[in-house]
Amino acid sequence: MTTHGTGRRPVTAIAMGEHVAERLITPVIRRRLNALASVRPGHTVTEFDTVDLSDVEVLFTCWHCPPITAQVLDRAPRLRAVIHAAGTVKDHITDACWQRGITVTSAAAANAEPVAEFTLAAILFAGKRVVDIARTYQATRRDHAWDTRYPDLGNYQRTIGIVGASRIGRRVVELLEPFSFNVLVYDPYLAGDLPGARTSDLDELVASSHIVSLHAPDLPETRHMIDATRLAAMRDGATLINTARAALVDQKALTAELLTGRLHAVLDHTAPEVLPPDSPLYGLPNAVVTPHIAGSIGNELARMAHLALDELDRYAHGIPLQHRVDPHALLRTA
Amino acid sequence: MTTHGTGRRPVTAIAMGEHVAERLITPVIRRRLNALASVRPGHTVTEFDTVDLSDVEVLFTCWHCPPITAQVLDRAPRLRAVIHAAGTVKDHITDACWQRGITVTSAAAANAEPVAEFTLAAILFAGKRVVDIARTYQATRRDHAWDTRYPDLGNYQRTIGIVGASRIGRRVVELLEPFSFNVLVYDPYLAGDLPGARTSDLDELVASSHIVSLHAPDLPETRHMIDATRLAAMRDGATLINTARAALVDQKALTAELLTGRLHAVLDHTAPEVLPPDSPLYGLPNAVVTPHIAGSIGNELARMAHLALDELDRYAHGIPLQHRVDPHALLRTA
Repeated sequence: MTTHGTGRRPVTAIAMGEHVAERLITPVIRRRLNALASVRPGHTVTEFDTVDLSDVEVLFTCWHCPPITAQVLDRAPRLRAVIHAAGTVKDHITDACWQRGITVTSAAAANAEPVAEFTLAAILFAGKRVVDIARTYQATRRDHAWDTRYPDLGNYQRTIGIVGASRIGRRVVELLEPFSFNVLVYDPYLAGDLPGARTSDLDELVASSHIVSLHAPDLPETRHMIDATRLAAMRDGATLINTARAALVDQKALTAELLTGRLHAVLDHTAPEVLPPDSPLYGLPNAVVTPHIAGSIGNELARMAHLALDELDRYAHGIPLQHRVDPHALLRTA
Repeated sequence: MTTHGTGRRPVTAIAMGEHVAERLITPVIRRRLNALASVRPGHTVTEFDTVDLSDVEVLFTCWHCPPITAQVLDRAPRLRAVIHAAGTVKDHITDACWQRGITVTSAAAANAEPVAEFTLAAILFAGKRVVDIARTYQATRRDHAWDTRYPDLGNYQRTIGIVGASRIGRRVVELLEPFSFNVLVYDPYLAGDLPGARTSDLDELVASSHIVSLHAPDLPETRHMIDATRLAAMRDGATLINTARAALVDQKALTAELLTGRLHAVLDHTAPEVLPPDSPLYGLPNAVVTPHIAGSIGNELARMAHLALDELDRYAHGIPLQHRVDPHALLRTA
């Protein structure tokens, strides 16, 4: 985004984890930030208690920003906007922020992209059992009759079930468009079909999909939505992909299904987030388990930073923001 | 494809490996074949010497069809078309076929699709080191600072080099369109840019790409086009993807680079095609080696069969064929 002329350069504090800032605020981002805002204090704010917030108008935040409580707000009388360079704002935005009418923006749109990309690759590889075959080939050091070993091999006319028409779920549906897939989507808030997908109820989706991918928010009503009954209803050889939150799945029941070899899984989020060393999920030949890397990592942080800086640029120029968080929608989003 | 009315039902022999026919000629394909053609003899032809070819007008072929030599043609005076339900025709079409003016069609367009899909997934996973991270996570059973371990992590604004604007190479370029990539393409026969890619010479492509993917044909002049010098010119941490043919790469030089850990690779084709048990390529943490599965496998054979049946349908109805092989183009294609 490019705006003409210099904006007001609002007083802006950077509030996030120290290690996050080291990765997010690259020299390019730092230059853009300094051009747009008067950044104070000179260091990254990792806790609010000892920092003078009296003239701060904008908080530029990312992961590990401390909660912005009523007490913090009391000390930040000029605070008008929290511009978040990451996805969910639930970890730092409190009810007090909404009550004070603070403008909150999120880079969820930028964070959706890597998750959707990871999911697409996981779907394409799962259909051909690429990781399983590479493992077996490496372990046995010989060829096998792969199509006999995996009767359901191949990505032609497979049914893919997308659970949750969230930002990420919708992007996955878009990315699946060039391929020979039948795409089902389940979302209780979805009225009508999405382009490229047919709306389904969850039980039908789970029973008919070769690959089920989860993109629902972690809410009380979504906890264990993929429970033992729904796992049992999945097709033999089907793959469950979870790049969302572990709480959506009954992990004990999933582990049992994976141990029998009946199902396959790609799990980017588990409970706990780093599995204990004795977890049976580590050694499974039919599961790809990754330590929560589907979201923005490495250079992908820059995409979130630039989206947040675009918002800061709009804010400084009095242009309407494009990624405001609606507090009411938070009840049904991540 | 749907044509109206019944065609001439030309006498058609099925010629391919026995095991190939078992997988390709599913009940659906068999019904369509019988509706379009008079299939003779009643069994799959795996060798031509003992088969009466006197009234055969069409050969419906796939992998492991024996070579159609001048001697075979002498015994098939009515043969007019070879309709191949797979990619390259170089293994069974001889010069004698071209000299006799036999019409040859190929399902290379259908076989390009799974290779391009595999490549796309390999690119997206390579950018985030997904397989490497999953392996390390499983082997060490603990979390790591992944972005420190892999300084070049992430799929944002990466440069992807596509070697060969073949059918597969062009499809990969198309499939890369939704993502934040800078795409370079090298092909000596390409005049101007492809949509979504900038034309480059091979040395520039190799030196500037984070991921290099090979889609060139196996020809005398492409042998070892990725040699020790070009491998040395690749960026630290770059990934070489080869879903084409092993001969394109100096495998000894690549193995040496992989053993140092400087480069990464996804290799779907090696020399020999099944590596010997003592090959150092098996145990590498920074390589994904698969046994030639990127092309059509499992249900993906049906896509090739349907394309070939569409051609047979057109042939039977006297409609121009859409996938004729040009013998002159064979000098520069796979």
